[in-house]
Amino acid sequence: MSDQISKFYAYVDSHEADFVQRLADAVLYPSISSDQTPQGRQHVINMGSYIHGQFAQFVAKPEDVQLVDLGFQDDTNPQIRLPPVVLARIGEDANKKTVFVYSHYDVQPVGGWKEANVQDPDAFILNTTRPDGQLIGRGATDDKGPIMGWLNVLEAHKSIADGLGKPLAEILPVNIRFLFEGMEESSSLGLDKWINEEVQKPNKGWFNGVGCACITDNYWLTTHRPALTYGLRGIAYFSINIEGATNDLHSGSFGRMVHEPMTDLVQLFSLLVGTNGVIFKEVEEMVPAPTPEERAQYAQLDYAVSDLRQDIGNPVELSEDPVELVMGRMRYPSLSIHGIQGAFDTITTAIPHKISGRFSIRLVGKQTPKAVHEIVDKFLRKEFDNLKSKNKMSLTLEVEGMPWVGDRDHWNFKAAHAATIAVHGVNLTPDYTREGGSIPITLTIEQALDGENVLLLPMGRSDDGAHSLREKLDRDNYFKGTKVYGTYLYELAKQVAS
Amino acid sequence: MSDQISKFYAYVDSHEADFVQRLADAVLYPSISSDQTPQGRQHVINMGSYIHGQFAQFVAKPEDVQLVDLGFQDDTNPQIRLPPVVLARIGEDANKKTVFVYSHYDVQPVGGWKEANVQDPDAFILNTTRPDGQLIGRGATDDKGPIMGWLNVLEAHKSIADGLGKPLAEILPVNIRFLFEGMEESSSLGLDKWINEEVQKPNKGWFNGVGCACITDNYWLTTHRPALTYGLRGIAYFSINIEGATNDLHSGSFGRMVHEPMTDLVQLFSLLVGTNGVIFKEVEEMVPAPTPEERAQYAQLDYAVSDLRQDIGNPVELSEDPVELVMGRMRYPSLSIHGIQGAFDTITTAIPHKISGRFSIRLVGKQTPKAVHEIVDKFLRKEFDNLKSKNKMSLTLEVEGMPWVGDRDHWNFKAAHAATIAVHGVNLTPDYTREGGSIPITLTIEQALDGENVLLLPMGRSDDGAHSLREKLDRDNYFKGTKVYGTYLYELAKQVAS
Repeated sequence: MSDQISKFYAYVDSHEADFVQRLADAVLYPSISSDQTPQGRQHVINMGSYIHGQFAQFVAKPEDVQLVDLGFQDDTNPQIRLPPVVLARIGEDANKKTVFVYSHYDVQPVGGWKEANVQDPDAFILNTTRPDGQLIGRGATDDKGPIMGWLNVLEAHKSIADGLGKPLAEILPVNIRFLFEGMEESSSLGLDKWINEEVQKPNKGWFNGVGCACITDNYWLTTHRPALTYGLRGIAYFSINIEGATNDLHSGSFGRMVHEPMTDLVQLFSLLVGTNGVIFKEVEEMVPAPTPEERAQYAQLDYAVSDLRQDIGNPVELSEDPVELVMGRMRYPSLSIHGIQGAFDTITTAIPHKISGRFSIRLVGKQTPKAVHEIVDKFLRKEFDNLKSKNKMSLTLEVEGMPWVGDRDHWNFKAAHAATIAVHGVNLTPDYTREGGSIPITLTIEQALDGENVLLLPMGRSDDGAHSLREKLDRDNYFKGTKVYGTYLYELAKQVAS
Repeated sequence: MSDQISKFYAYVDSHEADFVQRLADAVLYPSISSDQTPQGRQHVINMGSYIHGQFAQFVAKPEDVQLVDLGFQDDTNPQIRLPPVVLARIGEDANKKTVFVYSHYDVQPVGGWKEANVQDPDAFILNTTRPDGQLIGRGATDDKGPIMGWLNVLEAHKSIADGLGKPLAEILPVNIRFLFEGMEESSSLGLDKWINEEVQKPNKGWFNGVGCACITDNYWLTTHRPALTYGLRGIAYFSINIEGATNDLHSGSFGRMVHEPMTDLVQLFSLLVGTNGVIFKEVEEMVPAPTPEERAQYAQLDYAVSDLRQDIGNPVELSEDPVELVMGRMRYPSLSIHGIQGAFDTITTAIPHKISGRFSIRLVGKQTPKAVHEIVDKFLRKEFDNLKSKNKMSLTLEVEGMPWVGDRDHWNFKAAHAATIAVHGVNLTPDYTREGGSIPITLTIEQALDGENVLLLPMGRSDDGAHSLREKLDRDNYFKGTKVYGTYLYELAKQVAS
């Protein structure tokens, strides 16, 4: 087996250029799931077809790779189809463990990428020429890099299997069930429904016999140490809608004659969160203070204020204590104000008449979106009443995701831990992290597997800028990440399932 | 003379269709002065040339109509020319009074006009077919209607003069000096400088011998009663600039790790103004409370809460007392928050890293922009210090305009008063108003005339939506406005200059 791993590593080392080309090919598809035009959606669907074709090379039987049609997206006009789910299955050996692998092939929009990135003007043409090894392009790290990583693993093992004259599935140490979706950046529309239907089949359908899951859709805590992730904050994303007059008004003519929605909104916003990041009392009180033991666990992370500074550029950290900082991301709720729809960004003197103030709360522990929604709604109604405004106010819960904490002592984590050390060395023992962001599919998968362990195994670094301009994946992370994925399969096989 | 006015009215009555066509021709030019592209600016320049050509028909000598080149606009790249000032002079009779007339031929941008106005999709094609008499198009009321009104007056009198075999100037009761600019909606760039140079000529150049001024660039207080305007609020338009990290950050990863500029900004915004419209103390204290006499003057205005409701659509007025409402517009300062540059209007989870919060204060009395700027700056610095944020904050004064109050008892106003009653009848004795908005050129003109009286003589109604979508001018206002302009000239001639 050790010989086979060596061949795998050698294959990766000698095929780096091919693997980069594979990623560049995938980045070419502008698979922006939030683009609701028929043309925009077609790009996402095309990306799904491409992924389907890539995995089709490695399956034993045609039915082992599928494009699952999720039907139409409800809220679009004209109606557009949801992108397909891509399924691929390698191995059905009852004597081997079966691991479920999830990633997504859709990407975030590119906003002002062209203007901001004069050196890399096209977000969908991967920049592969940088001396620092950064591969810059939309989706490079989120999640096209990881998906291509899995393809790299299969290609390498197919080559080894061909050399041995054996089928690919036979030489792989575990069975794998892949699921790649195309709507993750748009609330995974349609996927929950499909998974729920699938698990209600007598044999649990695609989830039959799966012993653990691996999600490749997050990032290291830092730029310099690998991570295994066992927790996620949830999210409740809100709009405060305030409506005053029926039209925008000229502030010269109507200033100090009417209740202005912006005036009301900033009063409400100002009560939600302080400069120190502390949220209003009713939300803050839902989370107990950290115990000394818990604090000690966070203190083990290889994290310094300088790591944060590297990501944020300017010294605007909330604390000088790195333990407070990582707890700020991982185990405290946070509230961010994102912007206002209906207001102006140019120098215009109009009074906006109808606005939606956008903010979100990252949730932990018992903070379900429902519970927090009720608390926020009650709080804002009370405070809006206090304002004595004649405008109309309402609250909309736009996006929700449950918080999640998994079992970091499970053999699934032990396998990933061993694989990480095998590739990166013992000096880079992985950080055990909880993500500040939410990946709601994690909970869906855990439920689909009746509580079997779910691991998040990140490929990219903390500074990849997944949702920002100049998103990148470092070559080193891409190649070593490919090796970690492959080695993880071998380590899984070694584990004694409890 | 009375016979001549009758002929004038008859001409207007029999040429309504021609006058509407004249306005439609003028609206065709998309003369948006804030469009800084060379093509966009060319439209404004073309509009200036058109106005020049129109007035050239009515002057006695070629040099009585001029296109004044104001040079280049400094802050554009590539450099673009400023639109020309159009000057026209009718009459040089030392025995007649000379009135100076100002208006502007540039317009506001059209923003979402096309989407919002499915019935009138093109802002620059005047809708002349509505049974309610509204003429809908960008610039219809601000200020193409008024400029065409003056052309109508000249055309009618030219016809009368031709009938009498006399030159136009001879039958006009006063001398007129027109000045039309093309940058009013963009801070009148270049005009102040030209006026200051002009008045320093030995004979005061274009302003030589002018006895009073008439500005046709504002609106009635209501939809149903004409108005004469003797005051304007000033303006100080500010940006609060806050900078945190060097890039926008993902709120999942960085929420509760960094100081967020939006959090700081809404704290500052919330301190500036209350839901009741009252500004923070230091600004409010600059303005004395109204005396009983002053209050009585405002109580004379023909204004009801229902007038405001008609403009604003929903019942969001700050007070049920119409006197408080008109004082809110005319003699109190107001503070409006317009929006935020750098924040998001879509449902995005990013933390904006660099934002500019836009707000403006409408100024009255002793509130010069300079004095208010100092007070706002001091206030915000103190409050930002209190926040203990590591972000960087600065304040920019983006636009400034002085407040102004003129002499409403001057013969210039008496002439306009008499003209208004002559056209509209005694039941529509004009409201004496102060505008809530600012027209900074008013002060420049007053200074250029060494303090001679300046009158604002509005043509349009309060609901014309000058800077909004569906800007309109009512046919009745256009035709009666033309009559008022002409009659005003006769009434000016009657006045005994004090």
